[in-house]
Amino acid sequence: MRNLCMVVSYDGTQYHGFQTQPKLITVQDRIEHAIQVLTGEEIKVISSGRTDAGVHARAQVCSFHTTSAIPVERWCLALNTRLPEDIVVLSVSEVSHGFHARRSAKQKTYRYTINANRFPDVFHRRTQFHHPTALDVDAMRKALSSIVGEHDFTAFCTRRSIKESCVRTILDAHIDVESDTNPFIRNQTGILHIYITGSGFLHNMVRIIVGTLLRIGEGKWPAEQMAEILQSRNRRNAGPTAMAHGLTLWDVQYEEEL
Amino acid sequence: MRNLCMVVSYDGTQYHGFQTQPKLITVQDRIEHAIQVLTGEEIKVISSGRTDAGVHARAQVCSFHTTSAIPVERWCLALNTRLPEDIVVLSVSEVSHGFHARRSAKQKTYRYTINANRFPDVFHRRTQFHHPTALDVDAMRKALSSIVGEHDFTAFCTRRSIKESCVRTILDAHIDVESDTNPFIRNQTGILHIYITGSGFLHNMVRIIVGTLLRIGEGKWPAEQMAEILQSRNRRNAGPTAMAHGLTLWDVQYEEEL
Repeated sequence: MRNLCMVVSYDGTQYHGFQTQPKLITVQDRIEHAIQVLTGEEIKVISSGRTDAGVHARAQVCSFHTTSAIPVERWCLALNTRLPEDIVVLSVSEVSHGFHARRSAKQKTYRYTINANRFPDVFHRRTQFHHPTALDVDAMRKALSSIVGEHDFTAFCTRRSIKESCVRTILDAHIDVESDTNPFIRNQTGILHIYITGSGFLHNMVRIIVGTLLRIGEGKWPAEQMAEILQSRNRRNAGPTAMAHGLTLWDVQYEEEL
Repeated sequence: MRNLCMVVSYDGTQYHGFQTQPKLITVQDRIEHAIQVLTGEEIKVISSGRTDAGVHARAQVCSFHTTSAIPVERWCLALNTRLPEDIVVLSVSEVSHGFHARRSAKQKTYRYTINANRFPDVFHRRTQFHHPTALDVDAMRKALSSIVGEHDFTAFCTRRSIKESCVRTILDAHIDVESDTNPFIRNQTGILHIYITGSGFLHNMVRIIVGTLLRIGEGKWPAEQMAEILQSRNRRNAGPTAMAHGLTLWDVQYEEEL
């Protein structure tokens, strides 16, 4: 029995999220089906965490135990030929038996992309949230800085359970502005990539943070309100949950080298 | 009666090319339908040139005459709300009556993108041709340089008519290598963008040039063979027609400011 770990990229547009759900097609189903076709084993894969419907992953990490003797260097291609074109396994490696894709994860980075140009970019429409008016990026940056550190993120969480602790640590949060090179797009303010790295995330946390940043970027709320919302620990004070398709699970970090 | 010119971006994946064809859905049909819904006029739009099934456009140019009094600054949004999400009008401007999107075009640039990493990029799979083994970019560059200038491109053309002259002028042809930033993709050689600018192009010309460059990049043919194929004026000596989805009409240049 070997413990294998794989890095998987997927376009989440067509899926009801990562995790298996009754009667809905998920990324996990597709991966487990591909493994079953390849090895004959009915395996449950463990991911670093679920991603919601419509959310993408550049580098999701999954681990699973297998009795298959297929060498690790052949797994990738073998799985990719059995997966639809919107899911690609980028690497497969053998890891220690104690490795667990969710429990061993040390930190994760999410990226949320906003296209603040007047018109959407047809080639990135599945991964960019289109916001057709200009945003005050400086105010958004100022607001974003107030979430870094250990905080109770109740205000930025869709509660699943009241018992769960909402204390999480954000290690880094920043906005990269990608200047647009298409001279035909008028009134451009470019493409905004919001990167948030933390030791863990609550349900919808990044999307609620982004929904709040959008209110601030639009000038509806001052940048200082971000810290006040955080301190209020009240979901109703934060902005709306931003749309799923702008969000990508960007990176998962482990102590063990994958 | 005004002559309007618009710059249009489209993801060609779902279309049977730009130009109207019996019983097939094309980009032109969608645009003409949107104009009809907006103005009530049944208008034929003129494009800078057809693009084949599956080929994309970053900035296709179309012109059309209209009696509509809608101000130019309102056309874009009005059309975009009546177009599917894979077609976006980026700008609309009024041009002189003599302007004709095809006949007035001075030069065009096409871009062909090859992903020469081991696995495809799920987020760009519709616009990148995936070539899973490494390519000799230096040899491809050397070969590509031999097509610059005025030549008879019969060898790089799917003939529609024997009468048509196959002499065209290529003004610039170069390859940009975009280094891949995803550390999980092994054996990477990056993303290759082949840009070709000319005063005009024959049917399938860019795709046959790319198909020939791929043979050279794979080391199957020496770089010098490109010039020999060109001189032979025989289509059978060139490589296969590269797949449509890697090709994008990048830019169209006019003397008149759009």
